Amino acid sequence: MKTTERKRLRIQEGREAQMNPDSLAVEEPLEIRLQNTALSVTMRTPGDDFELAAGFLFTEGMIRSAGEIGSMRHCDQTEERNIVDVHPADGVQIDTTQLQRNFYATSSCGICGKAAIDQIRTMAPPFESDLKVSSLLLASLPTAMRREQDAFEKTGGLHAAALFDGFGKLGVLREDVGRHNAVDKSIGHMLLKEKCPLDHHILMISGRASFEILQKARMASIPIVCAVSAPSCLAVDFAEENGMTLVGFLRGSEMNVYSGTERIASD
Amino acid sequence: MKTTERKRLRIQEGREAQMNPDSLAVEEPLEIRLQNTALSVTMRTPGDDFELAAGFLFTEGMIRSAGEIGSMRHCDQTEERNIVDVHPADGVQIDTTQLQRNFYATSSCGICGKAAIDQIRTMAPPFESDLKVSSLLLASLPTAMRREQDAFEKTGGLHAAALFDGFGKLGVLREDVGRHNAVDKSIGHMLLKEKCPLDHHILMISGRASFEILQKARMASIPIVCAVSAPSCLAVDFAEENGMTLVGFLRGSEMNVYSGTERIASD
Repeated sequence: MKTTERKRLRIQEGREAQMNPDSLAVEEPLEIRLQNTALSVTMRTPGDDFELAAGFLFTEGMIRSAGEIGSMRHCDQTEERNIVDVHPADGVQIDTTQLQRNFYATSSCGICGKAAIDQIRTMAPPFESDLKVSSLLLASLPTAMRREQDAFEKTGGLHAAALFDGFGKLGVLREDVGRHNAVDKSIGHMLLKEKCPLDHHILMISGRASFEILQKARMASIPIVCAVSAPSCLAVDFAEENGMTLVGFLRGSEMNVYSGTERIASD
Repeated sequence: MKTTERKRLRIQEGREAQMNPDSLAVEEPLEIRLQNTALSVTMRTPGDDFELAAGFLFTEGMIRSAGEIGSMRHCDQTEERNIVDVHPADGVQIDTTQLQRNFYATSSCGICGKAAIDQIRTMAPPFESDLKVSSLLLASLPTAMRREQDAFEKTGGLHAAALFDGFGKLGVLREDVGRHNAVDKSIGHMLLKEKCPLDHHILMISGRASFEILQKARMASIPIVCAVSAPSCLAVDFAEENGMTLVGFLRGSEMNVYSGTERIASD
């Protein structure tokens, strides 16, 4: 299943239009194991997991042909089927020393979106925020962000992340080829200025909202995250379970609110 | 420096328009070290590296405040300043056991885009491809890809990667929240069908072309990579040094060819 549905509130021109379901990309972790040892964990859309595992081993230089794979199977101890275990063919030694490691978690009993959410929750500081903003203020953020970007963005190839206060005043904007880096830089800027926790700030990002972005916002106690594009399903679930407000498709005066609608006052 | 220039050939409606410079996002690895031990390597746009390091440590749950950082400095043994070493404040112990590790390379003498390119070159199989295609064929790929996506893409939140043969026939298309996963799935599909090396195939991706995408294509011996959006500077350099053709901003009948123009026949 590549897509799923979550309810969201549609706001247009400051007016709440309707609360109805929206299709979202499914995002779940996949742990790739080689002979029962974890090699990599990636956040992926479920489906074609054997292709993903084989392609990963091949494009990271660990195997040269399909013939070097003896077998692949899902570990079935959990319902989520989020672990693929690869065994090499007889006589084949797979060299993993060059590997780009990407360990998300070291959970031994299976891995799933819910476990990933729970893990962040145990790490994150408690937070509560009475921040409330108007939808018109949120509608002004993309333009404010783009105005700042124009100063140096000429490539069409940089992601942007910006932090605004509850009055829509820009605190910091950072650009990077990596979306998570743009977010880390923005939060890092505020941290070094000793302005964390950011429990009265809004994080605005230029692209999509993934689990990772929400996780980083949560660690900094940011109550409202806005994205120009779509959120993933796991981002919505994460926001919901952590009491965060998540806005997607924030364009012009229109937006979708996927969780935490109580922080947004419409007209 | 966030952007830099590379020459590219502009093709419109099958006609070569001009060869002139284009601004590209700079992409270089950054290794974050904690007391001289590598914690993470991320492909980033240079600048604000201390903010990036501080934000990373904070959003990954390793520090709780700026006060836990004693000092940060660039390791200056290389010109590229692609290593930041963080030392904790006196008496502070930083717990790295929960860390999402992301080791790109284990190079001990500094790390830079050039080293990353060289490393892949030593790992990748030799390849040569006499594939040549018309720009009109390339112009047809985004539509062919989108047609296939329509079948299940409803979210606006999934990246797509597709492999076409030299006649523009679709071999496989995969979608994923992670662009690199969509590429791994597509290549993995062909690998499992024993159709690798893909030295007469074209990789088409829905978003931007980063170093990582070119690296994966190179491991599968794919000679032509096309992206709907911008390439990074390092992606262009990688394609150039590996004799690959890289096309960006492929939209309608227009495209920018950043390297390997000899594989594209215009009218």
